[in-house]
Formats: sequence, structure tokens, C-alpha cells
Amino acid sequence: MTAISSDTVLAAQRRSAELETGIAHEPAAFRILTGDRPTGPLHLGHYFGTLANRVRLQQLGVELFVLVADYQVLTDRDVAENLPEHVDGLVADYLAVGIDPGKSTIFAHSAVPALNQLMLPFLSLVSVAELERNPTVKEEIEASRRSSVSGLMLTYPVHQAADILFCKADLVPVGKDQLPHVETTRTVARRFNERYGPVFPVPDALLSSVPHLLGLDGQKMSKSRGNAIALSLSADETAERIRRARTDSLRRITYEPQTRPEVSNLVRLAALCQDRDPHEVADEVGDGGAAALKRLASEAVNEFLRPVRARRAAYLADRDHLRQILRAGNERAGAIAEETLREVRAAMKTP
Amino acid sequence: MTAISSDTVLAAQRRSAELETGIAHEPAAFRILTGDRPTGPLHLGHYFGTLANRVRLQQLGVELFVLVADYQVLTDRDVAENLPEHVDGLVADYLAVGIDPGKSTIFAHSAVPALNQLMLPFLSLVSVAELERNPTVKEEIEASRRSSVSGLMLTYPVHQAADILFCKADLVPVGKDQLPHVETTRTVARRFNERYGPVFPVPDALLSSVPHLLGLDGQKMSKSRGNAIALSLSADETAERIRRARTDSLRRITYEPQTRPEVSNLVRLAALCQDRDPHEVADEVGDGGAAALKRLASEAVNEFLRPVRARRAAYLADRDHLRQILRAGNERAGAIAEETLREVRAAMKTP
Repeated sequence: MTAISSDTVLAAQRRSAELETGIAHEPAAFRILTGDRPTGPLHLGHYFGTLANRVRLQQLGVELFVLVADYQVLTDRDVAENLPEHVDGLVADYLAVGIDPGKSTIFAHSAVPALNQLMLPFLSLVSVAELERNPTVKEEIEASRRSSVSGLMLTYPVHQAADILFCKADLVPVGKDQLPHVETTRTVARRFNERYGPVFPVPDALLSSVPHLLGLDGQKMSKSRGNAIALSLSADETAERIRRARTDSLRRITYEPQTRPEVSNLVRLAALCQDRDPHEVADEVGDGGAAALKRLASEAVNEFLRPVRARRAAYLADRDHLRQILRAGNERAGAIAEETLREVRAAMKTP
Repeated sequence: MTAISSDTVLAAQRRSAELETGIAHEPAAFRILTGDRPTGPLHLGHYFGTLANRVRLQQLGVELFVLVADYQVLTDRDVAENLPEHVDGLVADYLAVGIDPGKSTIFAHSAVPALNQLMLPFLSLVSVAELERNPTVKEEIEASRRSSVSGLMLTYPVHQAADILFCKADLVPVGKDQLPHVETTRTVARRFNERYGPVFPVPDALLSSVPHLLGLDGQKMSKSRGNAIALSLSADETAERIRRARTDSLRRITYEPQTRPEVSNLVRLAALCQDRDPHEVADEVGDGGAAALKRLASEAVNEFLRPVRARRAAYLADRDHLRQILRAGNERAGAIAEETLREVRAAMKTP
């Protein structure tokens, strides 16, 4: 795990609370950059972890830029083979959960080449030593033979700085593990402004209090472990997955996350989908046991996802329209990148 | 100094001789990428070291891409302040020495943003360990505190790979110090082709047998030492610089580079400008001594540079035309970059 001090997390939480107050007061003053790698369908962990928060912020009136990080996965052969399908699926996921292309900008990294032109000046503003101190990079270096750390891996936080700063986002919703990445972006923005004059906002990390959903096997929820409920699953597939979920041997259902993680996770899943208190859900099942809990969870999830899945299917049935939405987002992001580059060139006195 | 083995240099020389035969046979089969950083006026060291060779290759019928590496100097504040002037000056230098915009493409890095989009896949193809082994990078790391090596410095050979490969250049004229940079480009091209399919040529270094001109103080010729004769100097400034050049105390002028470097350098300068054998030039001055040698060298240089300077002044007197030439080059380079990126995307299966 990354070594992020609790002081850092506490400070970020305090700052995030201040920012939420600011957002409530004047939402249009903020621009958010967020996004995902198109490596497979989004699942309920993503939904409750980040997608719901994005939609909430969009509804408050914050301007949202949602990056389909297709360029970042190019080097993953398995993903690259099916990239167009993955990209369509991701855009459909976004639209299905409520990202509104009339309010927010969904765009693909590979379609905004100007963005990459920020890499050169940005790379000049951070040292190799600083890049190697980034906890995520450090982890990679420690986990693998040093010879297998690619130039891309080392410079990844700088690519992220370009993703965030090209559209002058001032808020980046993250989990606490990603705080160091935002820190690199802040360093780059600050140093650029000091050296060449004020062009970039120094963006803040927006930590959200994420309900921690486990996978159906009690492990971390992950696309690759097959323990997640993808938004794209059918109702039957969902019921089948939940039916096979791990529980424990106690008949009575309770909500005790510390001592009964698997059962409590199913309770939490149902509670999140029904927007109820998990203790109330547990009491309702009571002595019904694991089978009753699973029935309730299946129904809750399928009921909750029904409209999402219907919208998702509708978008995927009309690919032309789907791709037109992405194209429009790409154009908007491209125009903003060009404008930022003009300012960068003026600040740096390039012709 | 960089540690390049004599075996490496010998192999590169042999390969370059083969390539020259290939060029003589079928010049249109080759594309060259070359260029300079716009950090100040080019001088006679550049002329005899590389510019003359470029013009020779152009006249043979090789396609030439000449990169004004403006983006690479952005981070040098002193240069950046006067960048438009430096860029105009560099383009005027090129045109004045005979780079023909009807045959060759002069373009500015900053005007071809698509080029930078190659950085991401390319960075994934080389390891940090490999980048740190590059002799030029290694030197920087050893010379400076480690903390001052920027991400840009470390990744510089990969930027160079993008500069060379975006236009699918197959020849890169270099001095032997730059052989390792071309090696990184070759590695990137080879690995890209292996991984994603054949897109890039694996470019060759073209070593030229450069007459080694020293500065007027007997040290290495350099813009910053003030010991060079810039193409842009006036005839009077040139005569004055040569008049103050270092010589030795022997009256009789001979051509003995090992034992009389300063005098021999002036002899060589005159000989190069008059396209004569240096021994013949030395004999002509004979007992005339340093003063006569300097007069002869001044006249030779000024005579040689007269038409170059006239063309240079004419180009600089019509900035609109000058910039139109660069714009046309930028457009051509941009179109080629877009085409290469299309192929890269197809090979990598990006949408």
C-alpha cells in the first residue's frame, strides 16, 4: 500500500469540507476533471465510489470534464485489442448513470492531441528524484525489477497533470491513494505560474466519503476478479452472482462490518441501492438467513439498476448517436486545449 | 565527455559509407530529419560541420526535414525571451545557406502538436534504467546534483525519437557524440514495430567526416564563447574577430594541426572557404606571418559569406515571406504527423 500519512489525509478531508461549502455557495465557479481508463465495464463499486458523486456535483451546477483515458491503456495489449468496444461501453456507462452531455464534457484523451503538448514544459518542472518519490511510482519500482519500470510509468503523474491542467480544472475528485498524484499536478501548476506567469489554477483534491463496497467474495471489488456487479450485467447474471456470494455460518443477519465483512457487505449493497440504513435492512432480513439476504440484495440491485441498464442498452443500440456525443465532447475539449496552449505559448513567449 | 566506444564509431562509419552509396544510387528513397535549437545565429562551425552536408544531400535529391527545435528551448529563460527573433534568424540562416523550401521542409516543433502524441506510446517502450544509461543523460546526472535532473532531461532521447519518427525519417546526420540518441530512436522504432506491427523505419545515423574547426581562441567553437564567426556577422565584424584571433610566435605559416592548432585552424578556415588544400594556403602565406594569414582568412571568409549574407539580409527584410515559408513547412509537417498518427492508432487499435 502507498504510504500516505494520516495528517495528509486529515488535511485533505478538512480542505474538501471547505470546498463543498464553496461548491454549495457558487457551483459555477468550479471545474472538475475526472475520468476512467476504458478497461472494461464500470460496476457498482465505481457507481457508489465515484459516479454518483460526479452526478451529484453536476446537478449542483459544477462544470464536469470526464476523461476517457484511452491513450493511457494503449500499452495494455489485452485492452487495446478491444478498445473501441471498451470506449463505447464506458461512454454508455457514463450516460446511463446520468452524466448529461448538455452540461458535462465527455471526451477521449487520444482525440485531444494538443493536450500532450503540455508534457514538454511540465516535464521540465519536476525532477526525476521527485517523480521517483511519488508513492505509486515508488511501489511499482519496488514491486518490479527496476529495469521494467518504463519511462511512461515514471512520468505518469506528469501526464495526469496535463490531463487536469489543460482544461484548467480546479477540482479533482479522488480517493486518498491518489492524493500524491494531485500533489504532482499542484507542484507543476505552481512552478509553471511562478516561472512564466499565472496561467493555471492550482487544483484541489476533492476527497469524498466513499462507502466502502467489497466484492462478492469479500475481497476488494475489481473488474478482473469477477467479484463485481457491472452496470452492464443482466438481472439474471446479477442474481446468479449474488447467489454465489460468500457469507458466513450465522443464521441471523446483522450489520457488523468489522466482524462479519461478507454479510455486512451484502447488507450495505442492498441499503445503498434502496437508500436505507444498513441496520434497518439487516433487521428486516433478521432470521431469514443468507438466502433471504441474497434475495433482498438481488432485488434491490436489480431494481436500482433497471433504469440505468435500460438507458445503457438504448445508447448502445444507437452507436452513431453515442459516438456523436463523444465527438462533440472531443471538439469542446480540443477547443479548450487549444486556448490553454495559446496562453501557455504567450506566457512562455513561444511564437 | 561521453563514453562512446571506438568500435561503435567504426561501425557507424562503415554503415554511413554504405548509406552514402545507397543515397548516390537512389536518393529519393531516403528521408532525413535534422535541425537545430533556435538559441542564436548559426556560425561557420555549423556551416562546415552540418549545413553544407544538408545542402549537399538536398541537392542529391534526398528529402530533408529541418526541425526548428523551439519547444526544446522553452525552458531556457534567456532564449525564450527572444524566441521569435531566434526562430526568424535560424530560418533565415537555413534559407541563406541553400536549404530550398521547394525541396525541403523547414518546420517548428511547437507548430506540430500531433508529434507530441507519440510520446506516450514511446515512453512505454523504454525503461527508466535504459534512459539513465544514455551517455548524455548520464553525464548530466553526474555533473549536477541528482535532484536537478528534470523529467524532461531524462526523457529527452524519447522526445528526439518522436521528432525523428513522426516523419518516418530513415537517416539522421549526426556527430559521433549523438550516436546514443539515435540508438534510443532505433530501439523505440524496433520495439514499436515488434509490438504493434510495422509502422516506423529503423533510422540510421549518418556520420559525416566533419573538418574540425576550432574557435578563434583555439578552444571549441561555441555561440556562447564569442569565438565563432556567425553567418550573420558583418564583413567588418568578421575581420575584427579574425584580427584578434590567437596565433603563435613562429613567423612562418605552416599547416600542422597537432603542433600548431591555432595557426592551422586559421589556415583551415581559409582553405575551407576557398575550397583549397590547407597546405597550399599555408605555403601561399609562407613568411608573411600571422598578419598576412589573418588578412587572407578574412578575405576568404568574407568572400565566401558575401552571397550567404546578402540572401540572409533579404529574407530578414521580408518577415512576412519568411514566416510564410515556415508556415508552409509547418503545414506539411503537420499533415505528415497526422498521417503517421493515423497509422499508429490503427496499429495500436485506438479509435
